Amino acid sequence: MTDFPKLSGETRAYVIVGDPIAQVKSPALLTRAMATAGCNAVLLPMHVTSGDIDAFIDAVALARNLDGIVITVPHKFAAFRHCATTTARARRLGVANMMRRNSDGSWHGDMCDGQGFVDGARAAGCRAAGARALLVGAGGAGSAIALALLEAGVSELAIHDTDITRRDALLARVHEAGGTALLHAGSPDPTGYAVIANATPMGMRASDPPPVTLEHITGAMFVGDVVTTPEPTPLIAAARRAGCNTNDGAGMFAAQIDLMCGFLLAAWTK
Amino acid sequence: MTDFPKLSGETRAYVIVGDPIAQVKSPALLTRAMATAGCNAVLLPMHVTSGDIDAFIDAVALARNLDGIVITVPHKFAAFRHCATTTARARRLGVANMMRRNSDGSWHGDMCDGQGFVDGARAAGCRAAGARALLVGAGGAGSAIALALLEAGVSELAIHDTDITRRDALLARVHEAGGTALLHAGSPDPTGYAVIANATPMGMRASDPPPVTLEHITGAMFVGDVVTTPEPTPLIAAARRAGCNTNDGAGMFAAQIDLMCGFLLAAWTK
Repeated sequence: MTDFPKLSGETRAYVIVGDPIAQVKSPALLTRAMATAGCNAVLLPMHVTSGDIDAFIDAVALARNLDGIVITVPHKFAAFRHCATTTARARRLGVANMMRRNSDGSWHGDMCDGQGFVDGARAAGCRAAGARALLVGAGGAGSAIALALLEAGVSELAIHDTDITRRDALLARVHEAGGTALLHAGSPDPTGYAVIANATPMGMRASDPPPVTLEHITGAMFVGDVVTTPEPTPLIAAARRAGCNTNDGAGMFAAQIDLMCGFLLAAWTK
Repeated sequence: MTDFPKLSGETRAYVIVGDPIAQVKSPALLTRAMATAGCNAVLLPMHVTSGDIDAFIDAVALARNLDGIVITVPHKFAAFRHCATTTARARRLGVANMMRRNSDGSWHGDMCDGQGFVDGARAAGCRAAGARALLVGAGGAGSAIALALLEAGVSELAIHDTDITRRDALLARVHEAGGTALLHAGSPDPTGYAVIANATPMGMRASDPPPVTLEHITGAMFVGDVVTTPEPTPLIAAARRAGCNTNDGAGMFAAQIDLMCGFLLAAWTK
């Protein structure tokens, strides 16, 4: 047991805002990661509703030792509006899931959900470059993962969502991002794809239909899932039975913690 | 090493506001006390300037899991103004050093600096009831200690301050509080008093004159000092050499932590 965190008057303050907030794991994990990086810093959860988020972010920023904010559902769009500067990927999505100070005290935002998926997948044996990928789910998580898969160099990206309007909106957005990958609407059938990504909540409840046809999963596929509970999800369990390399929501989240730690502790002028 | 604090999404949030903030010890001590009391709660330091304190308190209160605020210099007057209700002693002083939620989410304030001094002194062997007391220093700390000494039942309270206006203002205020104790202006001479309280910063710097005439300290006196560094202060060192029971700033602070923990964790409706 390490002496974690080292709470004192010199502790640098970080908060994570969300509604609800009780389910978040990052206070312990990110605080531990920052301590391991040698920083006396604590991430404290703050339960803030949508009606209050703008006033809260404005005022909590008045604390001179508040160096960063982590943002979870439903505040990622609101957080983006508070950023004076952002990374290109955050701008492309119009959302931020973490903010750190610029040298003038204003906020610099980034969005690492997609890269967390790709980094976690890579660590679990996924080779995205040149691969054909099927993404299921075109919401916030799916949008971030779509961009990250394209950045990682997939040769083809098929997107499936039962909400066709949302699917086509994401297809249009990834088209705008440019690149040479083949982009098209997909189906729940994973046949022929090397990378399968579930970015829907399907699998959380026992009654959920699977996001893809489990019977068509074969051992050469890589299967990643954003869902963290149950562990494993039916999708991850089926993929493991088929002999696939897999990454579950916990693995994606561990990769995100590393990304957040690096981003939040970067020098202000970086 | 206990697993302290137990950071999670369910952690209840507390902040201490001050300017400067780096010197405060309560983040570790109060967080540990709350953990010992079985509460998953963390006190995080927030460096807020006087120009920002009102906006900060208004907005940080928007966090639904923020259950309390601890206030240090120079914000105790500002904090009092944010309290919908307060204890009588906070009202009498017009200051608050801690705030907890009322059932409607508004703030209930208290000021425990004086009681911290008296509780710490009692634990160190001081019998204030019926005693003649000499208080040196009529500022914020001295005002709180004056009221607490009267509540503890001293028979006489002499107040010395080189700022005569401030001394007389405090004498007038303790007169208003009522009671039967003899109240009058004192001098730096401790002769004849059973309880000596230093509520000035004298002793922090090596060049400071002593708050009372050290040569007149005798072993039957109890000597308490609000100054925390150096440890011991010249006053406490002289008192110990004379055979006195003593309580230093650290002892006063430890008693305050107990008081804060009890206040902050009390049921909202209490």
